[in-house]
Amino acid sequence: MVRNPERRTALVDAAIEVLAGEGARGLTFRAVDARAGVPMGTSSNYFANRDDLFMQAAARITVRMTPDPARVEKAMRPAPSRELVTDLMRWLVQRMADDRTGYLAMLELRLEATRRPALRDRLTQTVRANVEESARFHREAGLPGDADAFLVLYLAMTGLLLEHFTLPAVLAGPEGDPEAEGTVDRLVELVVTHVIPPS
Amino acid sequence: MVRNPERRTALVDAAIEVLAGEGARGLTFRAVDARAGVPMGTSSNYFANRDDLFMQAAARITVRMTPDPARVEKAMRPAPSRELVTDLMRWLVQRMADDRTGYLAMLELRLEATRRPALRDRLTQTVRANVEESARFHREAGLPGDADAFLVLYLAMTGLLLEHFTLPAVLAGPEGDPEAEGTVDRLVELVVTHVIPPS
Repeated sequence: MVRNPERRTALVDAAIEVLAGEGARGLTFRAVDARAGVPMGTSSNYFANRDDLFMQAAARITVRMTPDPARVEKAMRPAPSRELVTDLMRWLVQRMADDRTGYLAMLELRLEATRRPALRDRLTQTVRANVEESARFHREAGLPGDADAFLVLYLAMTGLLLEHFTLPAVLAGPEGDPEAEGTVDRLVELVVTHVIPPS
Repeated sequence: MVRNPERRTALVDAAIEVLAGEGARGLTFRAVDARAGVPMGTSSNYFANRDDLFMQAAARITVRMTPDPARVEKAMRPAPSRELVTDLMRWLVQRMADDRTGYLAMLELRLEATRRPALRDRLTQTVRANVEESARFHREAGLPGDADAFLVLYLAMTGLLLEHFTLPAVLAGPEGDPEAEGTVDRLVELVVTHVIPPS
């Protein structure tokens, strides 16, 4: 195994693009090498096998989606309230929109996990750790809504993201423009006001 | 185009199995013929091209998932209440569990829709019609929860189904057994009691 960390990251990022663009079945060493613009055979020096490639893509997506601690600190300056929860959920949607490729690649990994037990176990650990960390953050920040309310909020946001990033016009309604400013903002507000009690 | 409706349905059902088992990229005429156990070349007599195959798979999944009207009539005999909403949502999860292949194939189609505008438009129509029909049903049955509450319920159930059918152990918690009776039932109840007002 070669140990050039920058090249490894570039290859994993290329793998994430292949996942989002061509689906899990398209993720081969050849496709990664082509996408990364490196000589054929390079990926085989960095990944033991396709399973390893899937695992490293999952880990990298998590890193890409984790917000900068300085921005988190700034976001949490207002007093804890339902409005702050709404702002945080809008920021979550924005981070996913800024890395739509990573979001779609993660959905591909979820589907591939139904076929690969080792990937399923790894993704389960990753997603569970994210959910638990977010629940802990919600509680320790004193945001309104108990652990059960947080779980329902998590599920509703999971559904909102799936709908918005695969079939955006569904939620915009028959006359709606999914790209219109405010459609998703309004839905996030609807979710939070129904699930989180007033502060 | 050959017009043997039973054979067409068998081919589309085989296409749905290929989608769930191998992903959208694996859906070729060859793969459908092999899965359906028919002579190579058969599918090309029934589908104009791959786009047509994707479209017909989407339409067929919707048919497969639509509940029998007689069972709906029976399910709706109790007085409208939050408990009845909970029962209906548990029945939804059960229908998806009974046709897990169809559920996973639909997720594959959602991802493929991000790459194929014609499929995206078709799926948008299909999913929007389903959501609108469900909202109309909820309202006309006099079930508790207004149109906004129904939309939040829809999003939370969408998230619950995604998590449950791709990474079931996440929601079961660190010690939980995702196959344990009651895990999903409990989550459905949590969603309904948080989103739908008491009746």
